[in-house]
Amino acid sequence: MQKYKMIVSYDGTNYHGWQIQPSKKTIQSALQHSLKIILKKDSPIIGSSRTDKGVHAKGQVAHFFTDKEIDIKKITYSLNSILPRDIKIKSLEKVDENFHARYSAISKKYDYYIGLKNEIDPFSYLYKSHIPFPLNMDAMKKACKYFIGKRDFTSFVNISYPKKNPIKTISFLNVIKRPNDIKIEVQADGFLYKMVRNIVGSLIEVGRERLKAEDIQIILKKKNRKAAPYAAAASGLFLSKINYS
Amino acid sequence: MQKYKMIVSYDGTNYHGWQIQPSKKTIQSALQHSLKIILKKDSPIIGSSRTDKGVHAKGQVAHFFTDKEIDIKKITYSLNSILPRDIKIKSLEKVDENFHARYSAISKKYDYYIGLKNEIDPFSYLYKSHIPFPLNMDAMKKACKYFIGKRDFTSFVNISYPKKNPIKTISFLNVIKRPNDIKIEVQADGFLYKMVRNIVGSLIEVGRERLKAEDIQIILKKKNRKAAPYAAAASGLFLSKINYS
Repeated sequence: MQKYKMIVSYDGTNYHGWQIQPSKKTIQSALQHSLKIILKKDSPIIGSSRTDKGVHAKGQVAHFFTDKEIDIKKITYSLNSILPRDIKIKSLEKVDENFHARYSAISKKYDYYIGLKNEIDPFSYLYKSHIPFPLNMDAMKKACKYFIGKRDFTSFVNISYPKKNPIKTISFLNVIKRPNDIKIEVQADGFLYKMVRNIVGSLIEVGRERLKAEDIQIILKKKNRKAAPYAAAASGLFLSKINYS
Repeated sequence: MQKYKMIVSYDGTNYHGWQIQPSKKTIQSALQHSLKIILKKDSPIIGSSRTDKGVHAKGQVAHFFTDKEIDIKKITYSLNSILPRDIKIKSLEKVDENFHARYSAISKKYDYYIGLKNEIDPFSYLYKSHIPFPLNMDAMKKACKYFIGKRDFTSFVNISYPKKNPIKTISFLNVIKRPNDIKIEVQADGFLYKMVRNIVGSLIEVGRERLKAEDIQIILKKKNRKAAPYAAAASGLFLSKINYS
């Protein structure tokens, strides 16, 4: 058996997220379906991150096993021919059997895009969250500092079963103003359910001056999801990179 | 009665083109529906160009009449709130009653995008036509020259009723290589049914070296639609600007 690692890019608009669910269109099921056609055998694909419904990816990582001899270039080409146009394999490579898409990851990076124009651009509404209010960039940048480091993120996690350890370490969280939008980049050793969207939701509230930057510290301390504002929309979120040692 | 001119931007992916058709989702019907809600009265909207199913616009122009006193800023805001997120008003202004979105236009510009990467980018497949073959840019640029000027475009027009005068004047047709795609810009005093897509389809065939640049001259002379290749896909086409004197 040989293990393979793939980097996958997808427009999540028309999918119920990454993970296989009965009678729902998901990224994982579309990938497994295409791989089965090529390898003529069921080959479970294990992903690094379970992206939610409507969330996009430019650097999702997944692995699978096969006992077939495969020509990487040919298989990549064939998979991309069979896959729907909104899911594409960016790369495929042989990996050591100890590699695991999820457990070998040392950190993950997500990007979030906020559209700022007064009117929604018809060509970006699927890939940005539209906030038609002025946002205070200085306050947002200040708020970022409270998130960075090793923290208990209970206030920024939607309930998930089984309940996971809420301690995560954010290595960077940047808010970057660009001509037509704001890009938020965040990297951590791992993320909990809806954690990025909950953090971004709070940053937007700070930007709108309905929260103060310092309030982030108080919200974190409360360790209560109800202490923090809403989650930002799925459409603006991109899983951008998974780092391995 | 006061006449108003609007510039409209839309993602045509989910529409059966501009023009109202019974029981089909079209741009014109979505606009008239929203305008009726605002003005509480049917107000026919006349567009400059009848874009086809799946074709996009960044600068469609339309006009309508109303006897209501309207606050331009407020109405634009309200229309954009009611309109679906893939159709947006870019500007609205009072115009002289002699202005006509279609008949006052002196020229129109379309842009066409060809994606060149080996894999289709999941985030651009709705807005580019994907050509996974090398394209000879020099040959395409040479072919452009045969289209420029006053020509009989019978070979590049799909049949339309009533049959229109096939003589049009192309003022420019440029093929521009960019990092990940090719942009084709074309401006003329007017365009016939599927004319841009038929021209681009031929340019692609020249790029693939299945036609010679000089063949364009022969095809034009034949004045027969069957002499020219297929039309390029709708997804890559954008109505970009309507010019008025």
